[in-house]
Amino acid sequence: MTTPTRSGLQLRSTVKRDGLLELSLADVPIPDPKPDEVVVRIEASPINPSDLGLLFAGADMSTAKASGAPDRPVVTASIGPQMLRAAAGRVDQPMPVGNEGAGVVVSAGSSPAAQALLGKTVAVLGSAMYAQYRAIKALNCLVLPENTTPAEGASCFVNPLTAIGMVETMRREGHTALVHTAAASNLGQMLVKLCNAEGIGLVNVVRKPEQVALLNSIGARHVCNMSAPTFMDDLTNALVETGATLAFDAIGGGTQAGQILTCMERAASRGAKEYSRYGSTTHKQVYIYGGLDRGPTEFNRAFGMAWGIGGWLLTSFLQKVGPEAAQKLRERVAREIKTTFASTYTKEVSLAEALRLEEIAVYGKQATGEKYLINPNKGLH
Amino acid sequence: MTTPTRSGLQLRSTVKRDGLLELSLADVPIPDPKPDEVVVRIEASPINPSDLGLLFAGADMSTAKASGAPDRPVVTASIGPQMLRAAAGRVDQPMPVGNEGAGVVVSAGSSPAAQALLGKTVAVLGSAMYAQYRAIKALNCLVLPENTTPAEGASCFVNPLTAIGMVETMRREGHTALVHTAAASNLGQMLVKLCNAEGIGLVNVVRKPEQVALLNSIGARHVCNMSAPTFMDDLTNALVETGATLAFDAIGGGTQAGQILTCMERAASRGAKEYSRYGSTTHKQVYIYGGLDRGPTEFNRAFGMAWGIGGWLLTSFLQKVGPEAAQKLRERVAREIKTTFASTYTKEVSLAEALRLEEIAVYGKQATGEKYLINPNKGLH
Repeated sequence: MTTPTRSGLQLRSTVKRDGLLELSLADVPIPDPKPDEVVVRIEASPINPSDLGLLFAGADMSTAKASGAPDRPVVTASIGPQMLRAAAGRVDQPMPVGNEGAGVVVSAGSSPAAQALLGKTVAVLGSAMYAQYRAIKALNCLVLPENTTPAEGASCFVNPLTAIGMVETMRREGHTALVHTAAASNLGQMLVKLCNAEGIGLVNVVRKPEQVALLNSIGARHVCNMSAPTFMDDLTNALVETGATLAFDAIGGGTQAGQILTCMERAASRGAKEYSRYGSTTHKQVYIYGGLDRGPTEFNRAFGMAWGIGGWLLTSFLQKVGPEAAQKLRERVAREIKTTFASTYTKEVSLAEALRLEEIAVYGKQATGEKYLINPNKGLH
Repeated sequence: MTTPTRSGLQLRSTVKRDGLLELSLADVPIPDPKPDEVVVRIEASPINPSDLGLLFAGADMSTAKASGAPDRPVVTASIGPQMLRAAAGRVDQPMPVGNEGAGVVVSAGSSPAAQALLGKTVAVLGSAMYAQYRAIKALNCLVLPENTTPAEGASCFVNPLTAIGMVETMRREGHTALVHTAAASNLGQMLVKLCNAEGIGLVNVVRKPEQVALLNSIGARHVCNMSAPTFMDDLTNALVETGATLAFDAIGGGTQAGQILTCMERAASRGAKEYSRYGSTTHKQVYIYGGLDRGPTEFNRAFGMAWGIGGWLLTSFLQKVGPEAAQKLRERVAREIKTTFASTYTKEVSLAEALRLEEIAVYGKQATGEKYLINPNKGLH
């Protein structure tokens, strides 16, 4: 079975040689699926922090200008020299954007696996999800349970698998409890539910009192507010209570990774009988998995010698566990997509709406509780 | 066999509750050795950077004041609030200082192992080596080859085992070449000789042109000067040539750990065909093993997601390899103490001379090429 050649819109991000970022919508032909492929009509795709790096290419979005027609908007913005250097590998290549999404299979290749998906609502991970249609291998489709909408299934991969990956990394590296920053995010809320379900101690670090209340309301036991004057003591106490020696940090820039290590060291040294000039021998680890603050990371090493800070990337984790284990994790997410791994969104926008400057100004901030969902087919059928 | 009760001088560092550091010499009885112990008359003990943390306790040595008699000097200096907090565990406890040294066994306990060492020149690792006499288990003495002086054998442990530990860590963690900062130090020169002997690529990072010349003169193949305007390109080229993805950094504070990761990422991405928004998948690691710059560490994360920065401590490495392997490493050092693992010193001082303000001002800087050796028995027999 093939689809008649039609076209669909696809959002594209291009870094021009002169240092200008251009965001636009392109009309691209809907591909004929190969035997092992299906074509998914994408009806929901989240704007994750991990999408914004590719989308904005480090451009200064306060310089953004709008042009083009209302249904074919074009946005341009300036990229600074350092960011332009980092983006050298993608200059003048229009990049499609969007890591994950969900929709309905509208055509399928000849293989039985592909045919079996026709008409099903599936979640998909890959790239180029900010598009009306996306051809993808049947193997890479996660069939959502009956009565699950694309909006409910749009975030099956990045956040849920990251939450699971944090817990699994904790176990593999010999830690017994976790710290998480920017903990009021969709991901953070999933992690609260996941850790509660699995009996794992979790210390949630947030920036605002209302986020403390939100997390307490969904069952979080340890929530520390970075803005409170007692933060370092609060965090140290929570670390003593949970025994957490591993943190996942979404912020990246600034001093909080070092503050967490400092508090972990204080917790590890509490009750130590003898002075040790090299600090505790307990290994303390922070993984930076996001970059909500793009500024430099700074720390003063007031935490002995047994410490590490490193990058953590979901795709590297999934490669480490292997395809079979990863598939089991995905199936678990599908089963619990309305409970443990449920997401909430502030707003649903079309592709054209996603390129309005006033919307960019909101979702570009990556503020907790301002999460957008793109529906590439909104208003187009 | 026992020694008649006499006393010997021991250098002590005390943090007073009011935030004052006090350095002084104490008369302590020479202990009777237990059956498995010997007493070593220490004749040479280096002032390593790793000794200065315990010695100065983070005090601001520009505030140092001298008092006491010429043969019993006392030095006091102020400790800032942050450092005082870090030193809380040692307040009002006089701490003996000195990690390693060498000397002659002057008395021995009854065990055959102890008796066998009488009159031998041995190297010892432990603490409290800035002292005329030190009782220590026979097991912990490394007998030096014939015709080796205590001065030649004074640095058998910290620097040589650190150099070996770096190479061994490289192998265990799957890297094939190394980067080393502050590379013109005694340790750095050992590492040059060790890596040449074992055919390992080594990128030496220094701060001054004369250090480039020094390292080239002993056979270093890749030396990059941080002060050169072409440093980042020089380092990247050396990383491409050697394939080094692991660095050991003696400096700690500042931006160079991040610069090394940035250059490693550029080296790993050189020739990459496809743009990867998360950077290369090559794991890049920097271990901070020293703190020549006590200021904060700062980096901008312009090196993808596959990276790590962490503390590295010799004692943790030796615990990891186990006592048998560690003993073999020590015996190798003893065999090569006049060649691969030879050290050089600027000056030999007595315990009293080590507490002169003008000497503290020199060795306290930890400048490369300003290394001191303490001879606790200098001028006392």
